[in-house]
Amino acid sequence: MKERDMVHPTDRELSRRSFLKGTVLAGAGVGAMGALAACAPSGAKDDLASTGVAADSVTWDKETDIVVVGFGGAGSAAAIEARKAGAEVVILEASSVGGGSTALNGGLIYLGGTPLQKEHGIEDSAENFLNYMMQMAGPSANVDALKLIAEQSEDIYNWCLEQGIDFSGEVLEAHLPDGEEGICLGYTGNELSREAQKVATPAPRGHVAQPEATGMGFFRPLKAAVEGSGAEVLYEAVATSLITDENGRVIGVCADYDGGSKNVKANKAVILAGGGFTSNEEKVRDHLPYKANPGWPVTNPNEDGSCIQMAQKIGADLKGMSETQIGFSVYTINDRACEGILVDENGLRFTAEDEYGAFIGKRIVQRGEHAYLIVGNNLKSIMDEAEQTPVAEGATIQELAAAISVDADSLAHTVATYNDMAEGGIDFQFGKEPKHVVALNEAPFYAYDASAENTYYMTQGGLRVDLDLHVIDSEGAVIPGLYAAGLCSNLIFGQYFGSGSSMLWCFFSGRAAGTNAAAE
Amino acid sequence: MKERDMVHPTDRELSRRSFLKGTVLAGAGVGAMGALAACAPSGAKDDLASTGVAADSVTWDKETDIVVVGFGGAGSAAAIEARKAGAEVVILEASSVGGGSTALNGGLIYLGGTPLQKEHGIEDSAENFLNYMMQMAGPSANVDALKLIAEQSEDIYNWCLEQGIDFSGEVLEAHLPDGEEGICLGYTGNELSREAQKVATPAPRGHVAQPEATGMGFFRPLKAAVEGSGAEVLYEAVATSLITDENGRVIGVCADYDGGSKNVKANKAVILAGGGFTSNEEKVRDHLPYKANPGWPVTNPNEDGSCIQMAQKIGADLKGMSETQIGFSVYTINDRACEGILVDENGLRFTAEDEYGAFIGKRIVQRGEHAYLIVGNNLKSIMDEAEQTPVAEGATIQELAAAISVDADSLAHTVATYNDMAEGGIDFQFGKEPKHVVALNEAPFYAYDASAENTYYMTQGGLRVDLDLHVIDSEGAVIPGLYAAGLCSNLIFGQYFGSGSSMLWCFFSGRAAGTNAAAE
Repeated sequence: MKERDMVHPTDRELSRRSFLKGTVLAGAGVGAMGALAACAPSGAKDDLASTGVAADSVTWDKETDIVVVGFGGAGSAAAIEARKAGAEVVILEASSVGGGSTALNGGLIYLGGTPLQKEHGIEDSAENFLNYMMQMAGPSANVDALKLIAEQSEDIYNWCLEQGIDFSGEVLEAHLPDGEEGICLGYTGNELSREAQKVATPAPRGHVAQPEATGMGFFRPLKAAVEGSGAEVLYEAVATSLITDENGRVIGVCADYDGGSKNVKANKAVILAGGGFTSNEEKVRDHLPYKANPGWPVTNPNEDGSCIQMAQKIGADLKGMSETQIGFSVYTINDRACEGILVDENGLRFTAEDEYGAFIGKRIVQRGEHAYLIVGNNLKSIMDEAEQTPVAEGATIQELAAAISVDADSLAHTVATYNDMAEGGIDFQFGKEPKHVVALNEAPFYAYDASAENTYYMTQGGLRVDLDLHVIDSEGAVIPGLYAAGLCSNLIFGQYFGSGSSMLWCFFSGRAAGTNAAAE
Repeated sequence: MKERDMVHPTDRELSRRSFLKGTVLAGAGVGAMGALAACAPSGAKDDLASTGVAADSVTWDKETDIVVVGFGGAGSAAAIEARKAGAEVVILEASSVGGGSTALNGGLIYLGGTPLQKEHGIEDSAENFLNYMMQMAGPSANVDALKLIAEQSEDIYNWCLEQGIDFSGEVLEAHLPDGEEGICLGYTGNELSREAQKVATPAPRGHVAQPEATGMGFFRPLKAAVEGSGAEVLYEAVATSLITDENGRVIGVCADYDGGSKNVKANKAVILAGGGFTSNEEKVRDHLPYKANPGWPVTNPNEDGSCIQMAQKIGADLKGMSETQIGFSVYTINDRACEGILVDENGLRFTAEDEYGAFIGKRIVQRGEHAYLIVGNNLKSIMDEAEQTPVAEGATIQELAAAISVDADSLAHTVATYNDMAEGGIDFQFGKEPKHVVALNEAPFYAYDASAENTYYMTQGGLRVDLDLHVIDSEGAVIPGLYAAGLCSNLIFGQYFGSGSSMLWCFFSGRAAGTNAAAE
């Protein structure tokens, strides 16, 4: 499973992380006043805070039009568009290489109604895409934002091509949980579910960045484009606080680089694009509202919520902090694994087994600690091939139930009902695709662990932004001079609608923030 | 249903609300700078913000030791304890009468291991109470906070008696969803559920404030105690912003009263106790992570999130903003209604029907828009007596299913399994109490609407506080001079464990904030 690897940074990254974290924590650990003092503009008197200061009272170490914090997908898009509009840009990047969580992504961007779909004869449109997103995202989602995203989907696709991102390959007419070499399009969300098909014609929308078919398929060309644009990138530069003037306008960033704390002036605006808070475990626990905790974070170590915290410090509002992609990858093992049934601690099914993994994962943690995939002997070899090891085995369903501490009568009734459904080939409970509704009647039976601890998570909540990507304060007003893009910002607040949605959000929000900041 | 009435303020309250909202919104509507200007300390130059100012540069209209914002349960507890410790106190209360959401509560406080339980021969203890809370609250809950609350449960009970709160009456050995006259104790949470009984001996913990058996059973004596304490209460006084000095310390509150904007100096501290954000629909939608939106807010109109917003404006962090009590009152109709089955849109059971309404409500909105209580003709008269009107009727389960757009095969299988369970008297799916597991086999069958729109909600998330009730900023540091108590604060972040939990939190947090603020 490719994603799991993301949480195991290489030794080199780890030591970088320790170094950087040391720096950041030293600032935070001494408390509010200590933090302010550490970020006091150089040369200013000791008790001068970095908020509410006259611009001419600060000793600036560097000056530009736009400071972008974070050199991942969103930061790249912002820098490219700001440069295109003629603004000077400095990017502050905590790592020594850039890439952020974009470089770790599965190589997918979720787009609907694109020329690529048309070329391959796939019926889709901005409207069809919007209908799908609206249903998946749920009732709290910002419809205006979804509309804009659907309308811009084609533009964003074309923009990707302009940056040199390559979507060549064949269409996969099946679930595509992660980018695959040679594939250009696949079903990476819940398009084929019974619920989705009520409102939108299913279309593969996961566009794969080749030839890597990983996040590097995006970041490699983006990095080249940023470098070619004339934007200046400072690596190993950790932003620590925002500097505001007497009117509350953001006028710069205090950052640690070149061995010291520096003040970087932004004559137009600051764009925060440093990612979510997936790697900040305390923050995650402060906001996740589930019955069980999800398993492992999928993140880059610098995605520690610091962009969110810096803006909160000057009054920014938060939105959708509980919105989290919680993934589960049963269906990724092999399509035929979906012939089994997923049951909770009570021995009950709770989902169509072929639904989008991020929806299944959320259902698991909402219901409790434990869940199991139950299969008959007919699927054992498939599971073996996928290197899956059962946690229990039973000659009968009752025996298997006892082995996993699930009520035997309950599981037996669940299986009996499922086998009744298999006879008609119709999953009348959850609408699993008929080809996967296969009787569970070949002993021995096996249980595979699908528990909460085996899910993975990525945060989606963050700074409240408006349609122009301005950061909004707690009273609903724009914080002048401040934009946010990518996973540190939240405009939509709705359930993650398909793998590649984050990349879509990064490019949508980054492009707009860059353009708008340049126009200040 | 008593709670439903809470959302229909009297005309008098409505006009108060319109008046007050008009004031508040006028400030917010003009944007950040406008809001700052409106709250500029009187006599100060126009462009001076109310943050980061020298105390002696402000013209103070009033001065005291401690300013408490909000005169509900938490504000009362804070004021009483601060006065007891010798501090001067001014309470700013938006309404003309006080009471907040405390006055609207069901007349319950949730406590474990109290002398009252002992008097009535009920076996419970701080430890047993803690075990229950830990399991119910879930894996993200702050265990240190729960421990403190369990330990202080007896103290809080005794404190209630000192304030003149009256818990006389008889024990009800059944679910007690709301205070009842003549009853002193009842099961107001999920104590009797299969899950809870694994970790804690069930005990009735909902203590009823008599003789009103409503929130006035708390607020009437508290109001008298506050008035008797020498605290000054300013009614129709709406706090609009916090005033901080050059070191970031909170030194006062800007408030609208007596026809103008006034600066009230707090020599020791400000305690925010103005309630959650239940009546702020935009904020609620910004944070609720469910598949369907819950129905109606249970709130007082001033519970608009303004305390949370004021503190955010000076950098306060948020915690558990998605934590919301989402109630459903099927089991409140009549215990026998639990003999029916609750099913979702897919025709599947999803809960023991006799569980705590706030857990059932959350499960409903997690699963989708629609849910139904299905009963046979044997229960029709019970439902009639409770003035419940079915949304559909069918001579067979299949006919009923069709009438509510639920798959007929699915519902028929669910009922068949349930009837199998009724034969053995054991709900092996969810562990409903055996006396409620009664076969559903007497036609005609009826469906009652248990959909998301019929749930009610109250927000629980708010300002991040520490065990001393200091408000914490985005970097984890204490904001000096600022405390929060009651529903605008969040320390625990866990599922609401029983009706009366909010009252417990208000008294626990209010008392501690008052004592700690007085010691500054």
